[in-house]
Amino acid sequence: MPATRAILLLPALHAVAAFSPLSPPSLSKIPSAVSSIRPLSLRNSRKVGPYMFDTKVFQKETIEFSVSPDPTKEDILRGGRDKFPLVKKAFEGIKKIGVIGWGSQAPAQGQNLADTLKEIGSDIKVTVGLRANSPSWKAAQAVGFSEADGTLGEQSAVIKESDLVMLLISDAAQANDYKTKIEPLIKPGATLGLSHGFLLGHLESIGETFRKDINVVLVAPKGMGPSVRRLYEQGKTVNGAGINSSFGVHQDATGRATEIALGWAIAIGSPFVFETTLKEEYCSDIYGERGILLGAVHGIVEVLFRRYMSQGMTPEDAFKNSCESITGPITKTISKKGILNVYQMFQGEDKKRFEEAYSASYTPAKDVLAEIYDEVKSGNEIRSVIMHGDRFDKFPIGKIDGTFTWKVGEKVRAARKEDQIPLNPTTAGMYIATMMAQIDVLRENGHSYTEIVNESVIEAVDSLCPYMHAKGVAFMVDNCSRTARLGSRKWAPRFDYMLEQQACADLDAKKGVNQAMIDKFVKNPVHHAVNECCKLRPPSTSPPPVPRPPRMTFPSLSVSPSRTKSSTVDLSIRVLS
Amino acid sequence: MPATRAILLLPALHAVAAFSPLSPPSLSKIPSAVSSIRPLSLRNSRKVGPYMFDTKVFQKETIEFSVSPDPTKEDILRGGRDKFPLVKKAFEGIKKIGVIGWGSQAPAQGQNLADTLKEIGSDIKVTVGLRANSPSWKAAQAVGFSEADGTLGEQSAVIKESDLVMLLISDAAQANDYKTKIEPLIKPGATLGLSHGFLLGHLESIGETFRKDINVVLVAPKGMGPSVRRLYEQGKTVNGAGINSSFGVHQDATGRATEIALGWAIAIGSPFVFETTLKEEYCSDIYGERGILLGAVHGIVEVLFRRYMSQGMTPEDAFKNSCESITGPITKTISKKGILNVYQMFQGEDKKRFEEAYSASYTPAKDVLAEIYDEVKSGNEIRSVIMHGDRFDKFPIGKIDGTFTWKVGEKVRAARKEDQIPLNPTTAGMYIATMMAQIDVLRENGHSYTEIVNESVIEAVDSLCPYMHAKGVAFMVDNCSRTARLGSRKWAPRFDYMLEQQACADLDAKKGVNQAMIDKFVKNPVHHAVNECCKLRPPSTSPPPVPRPPRMTFPSLSVSPSRTKSSTVDLSIRVLS
Repeated sequence: MPATRAILLLPALHAVAAFSPLSPPSLSKIPSAVSSIRPLSLRNSRKVGPYMFDTKVFQKETIEFSVSPDPTKEDILRGGRDKFPLVKKAFEGIKKIGVIGWGSQAPAQGQNLADTLKEIGSDIKVTVGLRANSPSWKAAQAVGFSEADGTLGEQSAVIKESDLVMLLISDAAQANDYKTKIEPLIKPGATLGLSHGFLLGHLESIGETFRKDINVVLVAPKGMGPSVRRLYEQGKTVNGAGINSSFGVHQDATGRATEIALGWAIAIGSPFVFETTLKEEYCSDIYGERGILLGAVHGIVEVLFRRYMSQGMTPEDAFKNSCESITGPITKTISKKGILNVYQMFQGEDKKRFEEAYSASYTPAKDVLAEIYDEVKSGNEIRSVIMHGDRFDKFPIGKIDGTFTWKVGEKVRAARKEDQIPLNPTTAGMYIATMMAQIDVLRENGHSYTEIVNESVIEAVDSLCPYMHAKGVAFMVDNCSRTARLGSRKWAPRFDYMLEQQACADLDAKKGVNQAMIDKFVKNPVHHAVNECCKLRPPSTSPPPVPRPPRMTFPSLSVSPSRTKSSTVDLSIRVLS
Repeated sequence: MPATRAILLLPALHAVAAFSPLSPPSLSKIPSAVSSIRPLSLRNSRKVGPYMFDTKVFQKETIEFSVSPDPTKEDILRGGRDKFPLVKKAFEGIKKIGVIGWGSQAPAQGQNLADTLKEIGSDIKVTVGLRANSPSWKAAQAVGFSEADGTLGEQSAVIKESDLVMLLISDAAQANDYKTKIEPLIKPGATLGLSHGFLLGHLESIGETFRKDINVVLVAPKGMGPSVRRLYEQGKTVNGAGINSSFGVHQDATGRATEIALGWAIAIGSPFVFETTLKEEYCSDIYGERGILLGAVHGIVEVLFRRYMSQGMTPEDAFKNSCESITGPITKTISKKGILNVYQMFQGEDKKRFEEAYSASYTPAKDVLAEIYDEVKSGNEIRSVIMHGDRFDKFPIGKIDGTFTWKVGEKVRAARKEDQIPLNPTTAGMYIATMMAQIDVLRENGHSYTEIVNESVIEAVDSLCPYMHAKGVAFMVDNCSRTARLGSRKWAPRFDYMLEQQACADLDAKKGVNQAMIDKFVKNPVHHAVNECCKLRPPSTSPPPVPRPPRMTFPSLSVSPSRTKSSTVDLSIRVLS
């Protein structure tokens, strides 16, 4: 396979502007006074150039998006078991890896890493580090980590001894403990490894930085821990099975940070690795789950469910035409054939209804999404999550599944006939307008195509939506990480009100189709990027692409809907302790 | 009248804790890392003690709230035309007062001030300062300000010459221009006067402070500009008519700041002046309009309107039992007889329904309100407003009045028979639970009774609700200041979802009455404070107490519903240019 492939994309001037690394449009618009105390630069840790990286150990590939007149290149790395032997070289100088925590990612990444190192005959020791009073000691022992052979120990001791500290504890624990109980213990020249940029966001929001004498890297698998583990195991028979990861180097104190991060990503089984920064990762991740992955879906379903009932549908039909339509046929079509294909499936009146809904919804949805992005980037959203921690005892997060909408949803799912779920053109128009608005905001803020497509399209249609299709939106919202739960509770109602007040009001007023907006949608270069990124998805295994709820907490679920047979959903539940 | 009156309040331990000036409970809970970059102290400008002030010019009164075991004292000052002569002494050393801007407050305060100074034979010149290209020159000239006699001039020149600079331009203009175009021009030793603490909040959110060689004071009339003017004019025949004001001294460079602020408050016609700080003012003001004044009312109406329809009411009846019930009989009862009286009006099953709704709603409402308070206090909310300014061109704030709810509302108002509006016990329970939660959050954050009662009770039932009763909630939300419009759009949906997901779910599950919560409601010391503060309301004039939309922008409305005759609403509209 050639190391560089050219993909011809249609000219799109606003996309070109978005990709200029010197002046991402929305950054320049944040008032300077605000940016003076909130470091807002997205690209502060790039060494080579936008979306590119250097490696002497691995053979990267460069994808060229020929967006006229200013082509954009994005480096990627293909993984697979045949690349495992290279990990030895990538990890040169590392004698001990500490995996701190035992949530969703730690058990998976710890085991994968240990298995890979054993397979390639490395003598690097992988040690799980837990708090002395952690209830997870038994779970770690159950999968083979033990104090006797030095692969399980008290957190502080493990951090002190490790050359690579993979800090996989919760967002809240990172925010509370990093500066006081963790960073002081890390050896000079060691590498701090993260699987989410949240900690950087928290440090920025309080005006702090990382210690300068350590490497700080990110490897963020685009799937929940249990999937990272299960697909790694399947990879033993199907080379290339696994969960894609983004990686980022925030600080390179030793000059070896990139190789270590890539080695980590390959060793845990990522079939496809793309570059990001910690800031881009937390911005796109926290933004994404507040948007189309979770918050926006919830809001869209609520507003359309009410709308269809008010137009005379039974509650069951209204639910089928809103929620079921999104998490069923719309999701499946995008996953298999891309976003544009949903639109192209409609003819005549239905096509017009899609176009009207798209025209009415795009700007209101983008209004909320632009606000979310600013709130995340400015540090407000992370400060809100941290402040909520101090109200948590008084006001625990309540469930949302007791309302009429989700009770109807339960009944509808119980009686579901998969092939009879309607593909409602208004629903499709509103949902896809919101997805496109989410994509456009990310592009205007300088994110790479690989990140945009992975975080806003593939994760939605291969992970979140199938999961919600199986268990319900409310279940998802009630059971994901605290950061995600707070975010979806905060923003779903905003999408609901905004779409009802603006989009539905426009539909009622028969404002019609905005043809220029539809043309822009059809010509959006992201459709090509989606196709290319989908080609890079891991080969179909059984079960194929695995849903990823956003950083699930207890009880975590591993869900595996079959994408090849649309009428069956294979749902396996695994509780993580 | 005695200078000190004792009011016996019931013991309330949590209230006592809340009033300890050393450790306001919720302040100590903000993570220290966050507070290190966001000055969070509420009481940073108090000189004498909590809720007290010193004046040698005026004769203050001290109200004592005997909250066992730690009595709380609050100083107030009564105004009236008989106090006007004292303004001369309060303004000693001031030769020129610049009134900057021509929005809602400037025309009223500028004219009142000029009239008062003329009446007492003062030679202080009041000069209106406008931008060279401001469209308001003609409006200022129309009421008698003129370049010829030096009472109207270009903004920068007026600022440079003034000993008291009353900065009455919009929040956005203050945020944009204060540090660059305004502060550098103020004379050393001059007094900067504000009518809202927003500017302090903005400066804190960007890590800035005021220049140290000037006084910084606040006089915040608890009514919109046109009311401040009209009641001042009525005061010429009815001594004491006017709009109450809070005042605060943030910096006292000359030792005369308190006298100047009190002189200003008396000169514009405030019948009753109470002490606050700039931080308390902007926290309670921005918090209040997001809560019970605007955002919460909107959310409560939406959720109950849907609920009553789903229970079988016609849209018209559902609107009457939700919106009309709140802005009509509930508002009037609270205004005339206090909060507790609404509850006491119910008997038997209705009483139980009130109690159930109160029990189900109080904690969810308080959850959202505590979040709003933290967001305001931490600077997040002000940062959001500022960031929105940079998105405004792309995403202007849309109207909300096109939805079904408000179209029904229009019909209902047109056919309204005032004496047939139902007093719905569920609606009353949810609304009053939210009002009490708002009060309790303010108390737990150390605000004075006078401020709490003025901002969260009197302003709601004498200003906002009667205004919404006349014109509709949506009209109010669509026509208030940008800060308020953004806030109500942001938080109304949060109240809606939270109350539907938690309160309505509890009602559906028949969780019953939380008797301890009801007891706490009945015994809440605020009921006494409401009674006392209501006694301090200006004497009834014709038309009596005037509604105040929160810092209305164009088109501003002056609304005067008659509180004495419940069946008529006198609505006069005045457009401000």
